[in-house]
Amino acid sequence: MAQAKENERMEKIVSLCKRRGFIFQSSEIYGGINGFWDYGPLGAELKRNVKDYWWRTMTQQREDVVGLDASIIMHPMVWKASGHLETFSDPMSTCRQCKKLVRSDQIWPIVIESSWARAIAELVPGGTVNTGQLVNWAKGKGQRIAPNLALVRNPEVTISWISERIQKNPAPFEAKELLQYVATEQFNQTGLVLPCPHCGGELTEPRPFNLMFKTHTGPVESEENVAYLRPETAQAIFVQFKSVVATARQKVPFGICQIGKAFRNEITPRNFIFRSREFEQMELEFFIPPDEIVAALAGDLAGVRGEGHPGEPQPNWGWQIWHKYWVEERLRFYESIGLPRTSLKEYWQKPDELAHYAKATVDILFDFPFGTEELEGVAARGNFDLSQHEKFSGESMDYFDEVAREAWKKFDESKKQELREDYREKKYDSLVRKGLELGEAKAQAEKESSDYFDKLAKGLYTPHVIEPSAGVDRLMLALIAQAFNEEEVTDEKGNKETRVVMKFHPRIAPIKVGVFPLLKNRPELVAKALEVKRLLQPHMSVFYDDTGAIGRRYRRQDEAGTPFGVTIDFDTLGENSALKDTVTLRDRDTMKQERVKIDDLVPLLISKVR
Amino acid sequence: MAQAKENERMEKIVSLCKRRGFIFQSSEIYGGINGFWDYGPLGAELKRNVKDYWWRTMTQQREDVVGLDASIIMHPMVWKASGHLETFSDPMSTCRQCKKLVRSDQIWPIVIESSWARAIAELVPGGTVNTGQLVNWAKGKGQRIAPNLALVRNPEVTISWISERIQKNPAPFEAKELLQYVATEQFNQTGLVLPCPHCGGELTEPRPFNLMFKTHTGPVESEENVAYLRPETAQAIFVQFKSVVATARQKVPFGICQIGKAFRNEITPRNFIFRSREFEQMELEFFIPPDEIVAALAGDLAGVRGEGHPGEPQPNWGWQIWHKYWVEERLRFYESIGLPRTSLKEYWQKPDELAHYAKATVDILFDFPFGTEELEGVAARGNFDLSQHEKFSGESMDYFDEVAREAWKKFDESKKQELREDYREKKYDSLVRKGLELGEAKAQAEKESSDYFDKLAKGLYTPHVIEPSAGVDRLMLALIAQAFNEEEVTDEKGNKETRVVMKFHPRIAPIKVGVFPLLKNRPELVAKALEVKRLLQPHMSVFYDDTGAIGRRYRRQDEAGTPFGVTIDFDTLGENSALKDTVTLRDRDTMKQERVKIDDLVPLLISKVR
Repeated sequence: MAQAKENERMEKIVSLCKRRGFIFQSSEIYGGINGFWDYGPLGAELKRNVKDYWWRTMTQQREDVVGLDASIIMHPMVWKASGHLETFSDPMSTCRQCKKLVRSDQIWPIVIESSWARAIAELVPGGTVNTGQLVNWAKGKGQRIAPNLALVRNPEVTISWISERIQKNPAPFEAKELLQYVATEQFNQTGLVLPCPHCGGELTEPRPFNLMFKTHTGPVESEENVAYLRPETAQAIFVQFKSVVATARQKVPFGICQIGKAFRNEITPRNFIFRSREFEQMELEFFIPPDEIVAALAGDLAGVRGEGHPGEPQPNWGWQIWHKYWVEERLRFYESIGLPRTSLKEYWQKPDELAHYAKATVDILFDFPFGTEELEGVAARGNFDLSQHEKFSGESMDYFDEVAREAWKKFDESKKQELREDYREKKYDSLVRKGLELGEAKAQAEKESSDYFDKLAKGLYTPHVIEPSAGVDRLMLALIAQAFNEEEVTDEKGNKETRVVMKFHPRIAPIKVGVFPLLKNRPELVAKALEVKRLLQPHMSVFYDDTGAIGRRYRRQDEAGTPFGVTIDFDTLGENSALKDTVTLRDRDTMKQERVKIDDLVPLLISKVR
Repeated sequence: MAQAKENERMEKIVSLCKRRGFIFQSSEIYGGINGFWDYGPLGAELKRNVKDYWWRTMTQQREDVVGLDASIIMHPMVWKASGHLETFSDPMSTCRQCKKLVRSDQIWPIVIESSWARAIAELVPGGTVNTGQLVNWAKGKGQRIAPNLALVRNPEVTISWISERIQKNPAPFEAKELLQYVATEQFNQTGLVLPCPHCGGELTEPRPFNLMFKTHTGPVESEENVAYLRPETAQAIFVQFKSVVATARQKVPFGICQIGKAFRNEITPRNFIFRSREFEQMELEFFIPPDEIVAALAGDLAGVRGEGHPGEPQPNWGWQIWHKYWVEERLRFYESIGLPRTSLKEYWQKPDELAHYAKATVDILFDFPFGTEELEGVAARGNFDLSQHEKFSGESMDYFDEVAREAWKKFDESKKQELREDYREKKYDSLVRKGLELGEAKAQAEKESSDYFDKLAKGLYTPHVIEPSAGVDRLMLALIAQAFNEEEVTDEKGNKETRVVMKFHPRIAPIKVGVFPLLKNRPELVAKALEVKRLLQPHMSVFYDDTGAIGRRYRRQDEAGTPFGVTIDFDTLGENSALKDTVTLRDRDTMKQERVKIDDLVPLLISKVR
């Protein structure tokens, strides 16, 4: 039941998005194109406001982050270095029977959603079915349940058979369990793989399918001209790291941020704009020194790995504190645009869930109508990315840190020794795990450790990085879902009606204020209203509306998420002389109205929408 | 000489862009990728400011334009309807000898730039060569000049031969003329095509090469999954026209604008960011009623096609006035961000230059260092695009205009008749030109005219469109070129030096104000400077700098194009009590300094940078 209610909520949201011009299907007049979406007039403004605010908080309001705006198509070696060419793929199987392609790790959810499975589920709401009988029945027909799934091949026969059995003889399985049993347990027991969810046919072994969109630059479609649409904006930042260091007068720790489109050829785009093939990212790569350097700067290793809320950045922060700091900053950002803490969850990935290069990753999750899903990942990626680009490009990614060099000089010898041993031990362990013979591992660990600390002594290192990476489109969906409210209100005539109101934070609302003359056919009201509109227009986005009853005009702006409404009435014109040159200011959320002087409008509204 | 000077200027600009982090080559550490560029920290801010201001002037500051943010990958039928699949191509030839591809319409410029041609040009500065002798000489060697160009095959021999001849016997051709003669006249006379500019080999007949980047959606690279990266943002606006009409509460005349990336697989990207393969566009499609409807609204046809500056929009404007209006608006926009009128040219395309669907097109040109080139095109496109999408999608693009219907009802019958006849005549002419037999053309013109006016009477029509279409990247280059200044100034010690200053309009400057404590080692100056920085930071982009002599810090901000510098000195702290809590405000362009109260800084600077 909860599921159905959430689906209904999602449908209402999708419908409002289309009806009010937040989001349209791309190329809809041509039947659409799967996984691509357009932002209509209100959606485009909402998205701009969110991106602008992210950019402002990152760059203008900080000293330690600068921006970048890199190309979507980059040199293909970038994706070899980053690992995307090798490993950025989903496992795919082909059905030997119907030739359809399915994502191997998503077969079960599709089975669950198939028409025959849903028919069974509807037949036995809370009811039970004896699977053993079902399996025997299939055998009696000369069929096995899997992989040539009788249920799939003859859904009508099967359903009527189950239906009869249920009425006669209630048995120990619930419908969902039955399905699960049929589709997984049964197959696992007999060593068979899942069937094709479309026709029940046999599937091939899963093979990796790369998610990058491929194209060619220049007139010839040859291997040497292959290029990819970037699957993330982050790599451009690593690739330009040295150029930015050389030009931006920034010192580690500092960050480079970027907003831009990225593309992933998802096999099954889903959940509206949540998982699409073309999307936008807001990413920050925040570069920090390795902990050994921080220890030298702090004069000690203690304190480098702190606990609790980190507060303002300090020179003695190790990567763990920086990581926590950025998680906290990102949560604060979401709060500041209208996602309350209670709607967000922090999920700390477990060691076996981490990507091989990640030291720690926190997923910031949001309660979407279709489930709790990731809004942003904040990953501590060590120096994996810069090192990879150094390796593949041959360009050094060393950063020279004069302050670190001086600190290192003065650093306690015994503590240096301690760090050196610790580093060498870890390197040794890792090499052994990679399968190196013990003696060889020891020699190599010795050499790498020695090279590393020789460089540190000169103030040279490859910075480590903390990466808060947010998806703009899923954030849009979160903001829309959070803002969407249906309230029962009583209209002017005393009738109850449902008010649909989008409670966007004023900071991101597409339109900031609606301006309404009380009546359209009174030129003096209209003239004054236009005057107020022109007064506000240089400072914020204004919508002027003189059509229909004032209550209807308010409702229209409620649906658009406009936080304020200004109405010009006869009192404004001086009918009540005490109220001359005042207007009513209506609050979208409380629907309360107050009387405000026209002269006070600009500063008052600016303070609320910035 | 002028050419060399302009090249030098261009080189200085490219160098500054790299040195100060305006523009980097994409993927530079991998050797770059031809036709792709990244905007560094200063460039990214400059570009954002330009785009934001364009968007604000289009949407927030007008009532009749709304925004759209559509996907880059659209349904491939979009490009069939728009004509891009058929005709968006360049003619290409392949060399039968070296197998290289060349753009057939660009062979001559490449010949001119070839090493052998340049060698000849250098040998005979202002000198002369007898081409007849050269041709005879080639024949004597058993070679023809073309297409197996002796000059190319044996450049050293040829050059030394020419060199000897020149010394002995000055003859009637100048070097450039010689080249031209050899490379074109000669071939035309003998009926031969131009040779391969790389090796002199024979070229194949030119064939069209489509400029759209191709990719595939979904896991299978089949014909049915082909998709293209949009070559322009405009088509998305046409495709979503009806969705926007249905949701945005706008009535024709109104516009839809969009900013976004577009891609063209240029064979020879050139002139820095001027012609690249990935670029950004700012486009407006402004929809207007057809002139017949405007005539009804105005009660007459007179005045629909006005002369001179159009002023504020009026309901009786025909397409020609709207077209002029938008040209003027766009010129005003460029002026408002720092491109003076004198740097811009209007070029009205001649009838034979117009695209077949265009009624008129004005190119707004800018004097780039490499020549006068297009910054923006303002085209009157009739209803070509909407009609094409109606034809290919089967979805009606009719717009219902209640006001027009009422006006049409009351419109003078004899004038309606006049318009009808005019329409039918033009249709007839056009059908005859297309090759229709006269009787058939007459019948069809009759029918089309009748359908058209039947619809008009119901207030239904397919709107016409005026399209101002600007390239963001070429605008960036124009702004950078216009801002770039080298001035001779005298430093504090009386030495002359060259000041490089980027005179960006404050509105678009990447950094608005530099904040400098006079001395870094005086904590009270630093504290006060940081206080001023924090005061300004919520309102604009601030750069704090305490390193080096104050003059050097000014110079650094001059190069970054920062319009204002605020210096905190001992007077600020109250050493001269009359000047307590004042700072010096330096103007980048005049280098003049004035004393300003800290309390006045925010409103003063806001008024200058907005």
